[in-house]
Amino acid sequence: MQSINTNEERSKIMQGKFIVVEGLEGAGKSSAMASLVSHLQAKSIATLTVREPGGTPLAEALRDLVKQNWEEQLSAETELLLMYASRVQLVKNVIQPALAEGKWVIADRHDLSSRAYQGGGRELGDAKLQSLKQLVLGDFQPDLTLLLDLDPEVGLQRARERGELDRIEQETVAFFQRTRARYLEIAEQERSIHVIDAEQPMATVHQALIGALEFELFGERG
Amino acid sequence: MQSINTNEERSKIMQGKFIVVEGLEGAGKSSAMASLVSHLQAKSIATLTVREPGGTPLAEALRDLVKQNWEEQLSAETELLLMYASRVQLVKNVIQPALAEGKWVIADRHDLSSRAYQGGGRELGDAKLQSLKQLVLGDFQPDLTLLLDLDPEVGLQRARERGELDRIEQETVAFFQRTRARYLEIAEQERSIHVIDAEQPMATVHQALIGALEFELFGERG
Repeated sequence: MQSINTNEERSKIMQGKFIVVEGLEGAGKSSAMASLVSHLQAKSIATLTVREPGGTPLAEALRDLVKQNWEEQLSAETELLLMYASRVQLVKNVIQPALAEGKWVIADRHDLSSRAYQGGGRELGDAKLQSLKQLVLGDFQPDLTLLLDLDPEVGLQRARERGELDRIEQETVAFFQRTRARYLEIAEQERSIHVIDAEQPMATVHQALIGALEFELFGERG
Repeated sequence: MQSINTNEERSKIMQGKFIVVEGLEGAGKSSAMASLVSHLQAKSIATLTVREPGGTPLAEALRDLVKQNWEEQLSAETELLLMYASRVQLVKNVIQPALAEGKWVIADRHDLSSRAYQGGGRELGDAKLQSLKQLVLGDFQPDLTLLLDLDPEVGLQRARERGELDRIEQETVAFFQRTRARYLEIAEQERSIHVIDAEQPMATVHQALIGALEFELFGERG
């Protein structure tokens, strides 16, 4: 056993982990999050769940603005800026303090959603997205991202069954196909993103989620 | 007289001018704008006045969010992102269409406010501000900026006499001194910005404004 010499080392050991669940509408993110939380709680790990956009009073106000229908055109750049404004509030006021207390934070969407939806779906390009992220959040990033992948038509059908669709959920199938394609392209390049086939039976999906979590954060590489 | 050969040349000739009035709280921007509008209208030029943040339904909602006091900390980056979200909506949905119709647009604040307040006052730095501007607005910029310069203490005293101060107006004098210093630094580097001493009598200030407008946009260099 190593001794702890500096405050920096001590705070690194205390620091919680940041886990993000990503995917299209109807991919099953909510039940995936519940499954992860219950698995971590069984290990006596303190958890905190958050969702984007939202999670602070200002971020929730921005969530309302970005999801409602406007008479004016809401430009892709404006949507992107509002998503980041919400994200910065959540990261600085909620996620980072929780991680510093040793909590594990499980988030329903994070930066990868913007790269996929605004970068891919709205075709703003990944370079622009990465520059903006670096400008406002620096090097902050998840320890693990679990991407629930499925055919957009399957996901939209599930979302429709749940009720009324918001401004973004009303987009065309082509928009969601571009979003899915960008999700998968980024996942191929970045090893902290695990892709899970979300069209499998729910029990199989959850088994895959827990497997990835155990392997990445509790395994020998953890 | 030259003949007009291309659509591009024709649209350049039709294009209105974009004039921005800048300065600290209490610098006299509103009466400066009224004076500019009346001078242009006397020349039979169609004008449109706008203010930032705001000017579209979504941008006005963002103005409310950014000016109110929150229980949570509103980070400098979030404030910056909201200012730009408002600006992008105003530029794309109001300013650019008006310029394309040949109108002259007079704006109460634009990009230079962010460079001075968030870049200088909140100390985010000018490089970050310029990168963000380029990302979301590209090369769009004013034809002329009129900066009403005054001692922050003089301006704040005037603003206090007008009524209650909003979240940003409640900042320290040191914040406004940094903001003023950044305004003046940028004005020294960029020749489309004219600095006018706003502590002079109002008639003298307005004479200087009209003089700068005439010289830049109607003079031999115009």
